[in-house]
Amino acid sequence: MSDDLLLGPSITEDDVRRIVREEVAQAFQKDPAARKATIIASKGTLDWAYPPFILGSAAAAAGMDTSIFFTFYGLLLLTKDLGKKLKVSPVGNPAMPMPLPMADVFTGLPGMKTVATAMMKQKFDKKGVAKVEELRDICLESGVRLIACTMTQEVFGFDASDFVDGVEFGGAGACLSDARKSHITLFI
Amino acid sequence: MSDDLLLGPSITEDDVRRIVREEVAQAFQKDPAARKATIIASKGTLDWAYPPFILGSAAAAAGMDTSIFFTFYGLLLLTKDLGKKLKVSPVGNPAMPMPLPMADVFTGLPGMKTVATAMMKQKFDKKGVAKVEELRDICLESGVRLIACTMTQEVFGFDASDFVDGVEFGGAGACLSDARKSHITLFI
Amino acid sequence: MSDDLLLGPSITEDDVRRIVREEVAQAFQKDPAARKATIIASKGTLDWAYPPFILGSAAAAAGMDTSIFFTFYGLLLLTKDLGKKLKVSPVGNPAMPMPLPMADVFTGLPGMKTVATAMMKQKFDKKGVAKVEELRDICLESGVRLIACTMTQEVFGFDASDFVDGVEFGGAGACLSDARKSHITLFI
Repeated sequence: MSDDLLLGPSITEDDVRRIVREEVAQAFQKDPAARKATIIASKGTLDWAYPPFILGSAAAAAGMDTSIFFTFYGLLLLTKDLGKKLKVSPVGNPAMPMPLPMADVFTGLPGMKTVATAMMKQKFDKKGVAKVEELRDICLESGVRLIACTMTQEVFGFDASDFVDGVEFGGAGACLSDARKSHITLFI
Repeated sequence: MSDDLLLGPSITEDDVRRIVREEVAQAFQKDPAARKATIIASKGTLDWAYPPFILGSAAAAAGMDTSIFFTFYGLLLLTKDLGKKLKVSPVGNPAMPMPLPMADVFTGLPGMKTVATAMMKQKFDKKGVAKVEELRDICLESGVRLIACTMTQEVFGFDASDFVDGVEFGGAGACLSDARKSHITLFI
Repeated sequence: MSDDLLLGPSITEDDVRRIVREEVAQAFQKDPAARKATIIASKGTLDWAYPPFILGSAAAAAGMDTSIFFTFYGLLLLTKDLGKKLKVSPVGNPAMPMPLPMADVFTGLPGMKTVATAMMKQKFDKKGVAKVEELRDICLESGVRLIACTMTQEVFGFDASDFVDGVEFGGAGACLSDARKSHITLFI
């Protein structure tokens, strides 16, 4: 007489339901969507360059399969001469804590964008936060996929050679195909 | 003697666990949340009008049950005379690639908003990207639900007749009720 | 002869699959990710203060386990003297419906930020929408976790005593750890 025959009769519908609930609870613990993060980076200023790269590298560090899709103004974040191009715009950011209060009119004057950019860079440097180029490198080294939006590339006339090595290319469809399998989906 | 009796004894707890794992893996493959996208459109400028309509229509094209909730400044994207109302604001968008570099002071001058708007429209037109009104129509035709935030409507004093046909109305609760069942949830 | 022996032989592989499918369908109905919302608040102006607090309190009201992570300019939304600090920036918001059209140049003039801020406050007050401080209190009272980004705190030099009582502190890792278990993940 086999073990099966001995065990068989003891499996009831209640047993099955108990086993199923255990397995399902475990399966939800390792829900594949909890291991995927899809970020859309749409802004092209120095300040807004930090969130996608910081969150992207943090997600990869937490073991997540992570991709950042660069579209719209965000495409600029993939260009080679990033450091020179990105600026902080103090206009429209009344929340930017300045060392000295500035009258709003000054933040609209030529030159102020340069001042704000320098201050932002200094603040991040002083506190040991990596520069944007370094954060981008960390993303690439930790396996974050950096994807350039092909439609934006066409509209704004970028050439593939404008971008750093390691960049992939894809459309909105590719982005959504990743996003629909991810719990973390952020439009930055 | 029935088949059940013959098969019955061969079902062990191990068999049950194997079957459950197969079924659960399949169920996650067709996770209902992977077929739903919920987008919140909160901005009311010409440039930021593209992302919700492009991503919304792409999600619908990929077979997803898609809704876009228009709130805050985004409510403007549902109005009838959209083409006249929407403008690009070059201020605060240092990343906007201009054909010629403009001193920052110029982007704050009256008239520059009109110039930037015309340039943006031309760029999108030239590359065969549909106009915002057309993208909105494509969304409606492909079954994307366009929902106007009732609270914003009250606060800013819009009338239901200000909006295009086919628009639905709902509050934050309705929006979250969709979003909590969606893998794709984007605040644009 | 036990019940088990009577029931046992009637459990076939088909029965098991049927039971599993029932249980899995039920499990997806109560998918734990559908009961969690993670919001990232990154902007620090009066207008953009509303969405995180309104969506956060609405999610809590719908029974969701909700956390809002305040980072970047958004950290300002957790400070004690919120009412005085937050301003609407009319520049860059061409969609802000004004009672009277304003030439763009005026929205860049000193003082206009104050006018826009007053108009926004008045609009929300008149329509019975709670003030930002009240919305923040509602969030805390309804169990929404308000988390200050420790990195931003360092970079911009905020002290823990600058923030209202009840605020927690955490890094990007803590934020992502919540987000990966949430269907609703919004970057505002």
